[in-house]
Amino acid sequence: MEQRISLITLAVDTIDRSAAFYTALGWQEEQSPDGIAAFNLLGQTLGLYPKAMLARDMGLDETGIGGFSGITLAHNVPAKEDVAPLYDAALAAGARAIKPPQDVFWGGHIAYFADPDGHVWEIAWNPFSPLGPDGAFQWSGA
Amino acid sequence: MEQRISLITLAVDTIDRSAAFYTALGWQEEQSPDGIAAFNLLGQTLGLYPKAMLARDMGLDETGIGGFSGITLAHNVPAKEDVAPLYDAALAAGARAIKPPQDVFWGGHIAYFADPDGHVWEIAWNPFSPLGPDGAFQWSGA
Repeated sequence: MEQRISLITLAVDTIDRSAAFYTALGWQEEQSPDGIAAFNLLGQTLGLYPKAMLARDMGLDETGIGGFSGITLAHNVPAKEDVAPLYDAALAAGARAIKPPQDVFWGGHIAYFADPDGHVWEIAWNPFSPLGPDGAFQWSGA
Repeated sequence: MEQRISLITLAVDTIDRSAAFYTALGWQEEQSPDGIAAFNLLGQTLGLYPKAMLARDMGLDETGIGGFSGITLAHNVPAKEDVAPLYDAALAAGARAIKPPQDVFWGGHIAYFADPDGHVWEIAWNPFSPLGPDGAFQWSGA
């Protein structure tokens, strides 16, 4: 298996509400069939997909989707002072606060919020892994 | 917020077991501090992180992490016949079967499995969104 992720799918209750959250943060939605939403990232796509359809695709009961399975999506920023404004913008767009911006023991500065469906985002400044010119992230080993 | 995800973190019970699963699929682990594991992808990193540490970072009780929150990670492949061997390799490496390779209504061919911690992967062939030369994925709109 090559080392890449093509598509990250987030199960959502209401496509319109969830798509509005990401567009409020400045993201551009792609053309998609009715009932789903897609946002192209760097070399991959984030898809919003109704919970009931994901359950059907996976052969699950819809009630089997819920809670927090321990996946977080981090959006890294170039500077420490970039964390707070993004966190504030997310809350203003309807995110649920989890952890306000703060310094962490390993030397970074981070915040956590949950999107309208409970999917967890971390906004992070990591001084040991600067972002590439296109925003690409690469682990530094630190 | 720019349209990118820097780091995807998967909470795991045992780093060694979980890292062994991904290395068995051919992935190369990066240098990391003890107790965590990192795999660089295209412009982002997949991190394995102990459930207890993620809970502490987020200010949660560890028992608050579990179940299936509805995030799936898709790995797309260039050809329909690439799906089954990857699915078989994942099961051989310790994945739990969810859905064996099959044609789906929208014209693709997919399979689902869960990694040793229950994180859900989709192996997909999507004839409408061919992969770029470096394996990058971009939503076609279909």
